[in-house]
Amino acid sequence: MPQPLSLVIAEAALETVPKKLTDHPSVRNHAEKTSRKPSEILLDRSYHHAAMKGMQSDWKRGRPDIVHLALVEALATPLFKKGLLKMYIHTINDKLILIGDNLRIPKSYLRFEGLMIDLFKNKAIKSREGQLLLELRDNITFGDLVKNMITAERIIALSTKGIRTSADQLVFQNVSDSRHCAFVIGGFPKGHFSEDISSLCDCTYSIGSRGLEGHVVIARILYECERALSLTY
Amino acid sequence: MPQPLSLVIAEAALETVPKKLTDHPSVRNHAEKTSRKPSEILLDRSYHHAAMKGMQSDWKRGRPDIVHLALVEALATPLFKKGLLKMYIHTINDKLILIGDNLRIPKSYLRFEGLMIDLFKNKAIKSREGQLLLELRDNITFGDLVKNMITAERIIALSTKGIRTSADQLVFQNVSDSRHCAFVIGGFPKGHFSEDISSLCDCTYSIGSRGLEGHVVIARILYECERALSLTY
Repeated sequence: MPQPLSLVIAEAALETVPKKLTDHPSVRNHAEKTSRKPSEILLDRSYHHAAMKGMQSDWKRGRPDIVHLALVEALATPLFKKGLLKMYIHTINDKLILIGDNLRIPKSYLRFEGLMIDLFKNKAIKSREGQLLLELRDNITFGDLVKNMITAERIIALSTKGIRTSADQLVFQNVSDSRHCAFVIGGFPKGHFSEDISSLCDCTYSIGSRGLEGHVVIARILYECERALSLTY
Repeated sequence: MPQPLSLVIAEAALETVPKKLTDHPSVRNHAEKTSRKPSEILLDRSYHHAAMKGMQSDWKRGRPDIVHLALVEALATPLFKKGLLKMYIHTINDKLILIGDNLRIPKSYLRFEGLMIDLFKNKAIKSREGQLLLELRDNITFGDLVKNMITAERIIALSTKGIRTSADQLVFQNVSDSRHCAFVIGGFPKGHFSEDISSLCDCTYSIGSRGLEGHVVIARILYECERALSLTY
């Protein structure tokens, strides 16, 4: 049985509305329309653009749709379905989301949003049979995650700032059935990893000169991993 | 310059709420919450499940999120961005959506939904500079599309009912820079193409024994097309 691969969505733009913003009209209106408390809803630039002005690192926040796409992409692969991929969401606020092996992520954004609101409130989502599907842990740094929890032999960041290569070359040179690799992909709309993240990775590569969307990078890397491991499906 | 490839999302589960259902409470509530007319909103199983019971082919309808994912996947590829892929959405009601070369599809589902509602109402979306980004045409059959509009040399359907192959083999055997191929992928949640569709395709292949989600099939086929055409990006 090959070693599992890991995929980390780092600095993910997923959080509930910070306390400072819960009184802003755009947040209050949105909460009212969805019959939820302002502090429970997800920060989302599509609704809260006005409230987010002047917020720290505002350009890197409020994009839960990016996390949704990353999960939809990765969890639909045979690699994940066969138990060969562990996936982690590490948010911009040092919250860690652990993904259960049996999670089926909703393709509908509305359902995903409901699931995340529930997770931020209750810290865990279980199946009817009691299996843990999602777990949220507070105050876990990226360092805690990659050094103490994942313990991969190689931590590979993907960024346009990295060394130029192709998806197949990158995977061919790093993935084998005896080595545990972790791929790290940004969960934010633009910009680069903060120094805290990139300094903890062993190397940084780029698989597209003009920059590919995160979900495209995920699709290509995981597909090449399946090919490298000769996974049949 | 290579011949363009085409991608058709067929029997796409994208439509506005049919007249018969506009008085149903689930539709009226949803329309009210979003400040739109019931006849203008998109039929969506996440909101209108109760209203859809007993509707013809209800299991194949009301999933605009599937079309969203297909567009997000395909339009983010270098193949599309370099003008080598034409994409078409053909809906279950014989409406055809033409995708402009410069369209940037919103990753946020909320924004996509707004765009589609606008398109169904006004039949066209233009950029500020007047470029046509999206166009909706009524009463175009799948036959009209593939025989008279796309005029591809090979029309290849992807379905779990097809001949078992791999994405790289399928593309290697069919895609070259002198032949125009059209790939046809279902835009519905489960089941198979109707006979009207599959009888108009030259061949049907399957690239995963257990069935892959449509967006995964799109990601893999388009990536292999880029490799077959030695596209650098």
